[in-house]
Amino acid sequence: MASNSKKAVVLLSGGLDSFTSAGYARAAGFELYGLTIDYGQRHQAELEAAAKIAQYLAIKEHKIIKLDLRAFGGSALTSDQEVPKDTETSDIPVTYVPARNTIMLSLALGWAEVLGSFDIFIGANSVDYSGYPDCRGEFIAAFESLANLATKAGVEGAGHFRIQAPLLNLTKAQIISSGLEMGLDYSISHSCYDPDELGRSCGHCDSCRIRLKGFADAGAVDPAIYQ
Amino acid sequence: MASNSKKAVVLLSGGLDSFTSAGYARAAGFELYGLTIDYGQRHQAELEAAAKIAQYLAIKEHKIIKLDLRAFGGSALTSDQEVPKDTETSDIPVTYVPARNTIMLSLALGWAEVLGSFDIFIGANSVDYSGYPDCRGEFIAAFESLANLATKAGVEGAGHFRIQAPLLNLTKAQIISSGLEMGLDYSISHSCYDPDELGRSCGHCDSCRIRLKGFADAGAVDPAIYQ
Repeated sequence: MASNSKKAVVLLSGGLDSFTSAGYARAAGFELYGLTIDYGQRHQAELEAAAKIAQYLAIKEHKIIKLDLRAFGGSALTSDQEVPKDTETSDIPVTYVPARNTIMLSLALGWAEVLGSFDIFIGANSVDYSGYPDCRGEFIAAFESLANLATKAGVEGAGHFRIQAPLLNLTKAQIISSGLEMGLDYSISHSCYDPDELGRSCGHCDSCRIRLKGFADAGAVDPAIYQ
Repeated sequence: MASNSKKAVVLLSGGLDSFTSAGYARAAGFELYGLTIDYGQRHQAELEAAAKIAQYLAIKEHKIIKLDLRAFGGSALTSDQEVPKDTETSDIPVTYVPARNTIMLSLALGWAEVLGSFDIFIGANSVDYSGYPDCRGEFIAAFESLANLATKAGVEGAGHFRIQAPLLNLTKAQIISSGLEMGLDYSISHSCYDPDELGRSCGHCDSCRIRLKGFADAGAVDPAIYQ
């Protein structure tokens, strides 16, 4: 268990998973530094949720870094492709953003090195996001190895970087149950890929459906506002 | 040797190394896609040089992505720390930017995946930049492994990502000689960490000194303009 003096960089998307992941970091006694990447999402609701979560968790410092991944295209989340509704697929979904977790962890690593932090928390989950290659344990392990080769702090032995993915093998229901046990207020998190102009969730995109099923399976009520 | 139909993403900083690295990619028959990261450098001369190099190499598409690493601090190149002049050191220099190559390769990987490209060229060099952990062969190899775990294209086996660092084990003189053999016009590249307002190089920072010594060792004249 970490002492109170240790810093952790926590990636915050504004969604339920990264909120819960940051909750684990807080519960472990870390001083939290929140990093949100504004990668040209189609809506601002996620960024607003990330800011609320940072405040709620009393994060020491919250940085929102602009990085326009729309310049590359290739995903329904960063381009004009339509977000799929009410579909089942075992393929990698069109909402996959190329190299997203690699990019986000790289940025977190850069900031961690400046802060003198060696712990990076990410809400990656391999159960409900089995289609995303960068949500798997072997990806997380490979990034951790890379981090210790890539940095002055890692190479000089000032510490050993750890990529902490506490939700990796949990179901959505388990994630939600653990967050509720920690007392997290999920009403401030945002999951929907396609909210309306009032920020209300659609209830039909992959992300909403996984969230709703998770709350149902956990025997809890989703406090998000739906259209 | 690659066929003419293959695409490569080439990282272009505007400096001599990435110019030469892109020259290797062109010589190998790749169709070039140039990527420049505007990470909040203290001067714009590098970005202008990158644009000139992209035009000179007849690059198919050149993207400049803004990413303000100054938000993190931690380097003389992205903060108000003074750039050292005329100093010798075996330590990692203050001009080291935390996780820079990891971040740049991650972005290149994201674009490569969208393009259907599997080759990424970076001008990393372990001889003259022995102090930078992310300029070593083991870092490059670790990133290549990561790339093939991190992406839909890598995991689904559409191809195998290769991180190509053709300059990795060359001295600066060898880099310059090979570029001159390829006919590269080095007058359009920019190396100085601390140019004056006219864009003229200082001749005294680490980067200028390594460049000047490289041209001298190669028995060639540096076409850059010095103060």
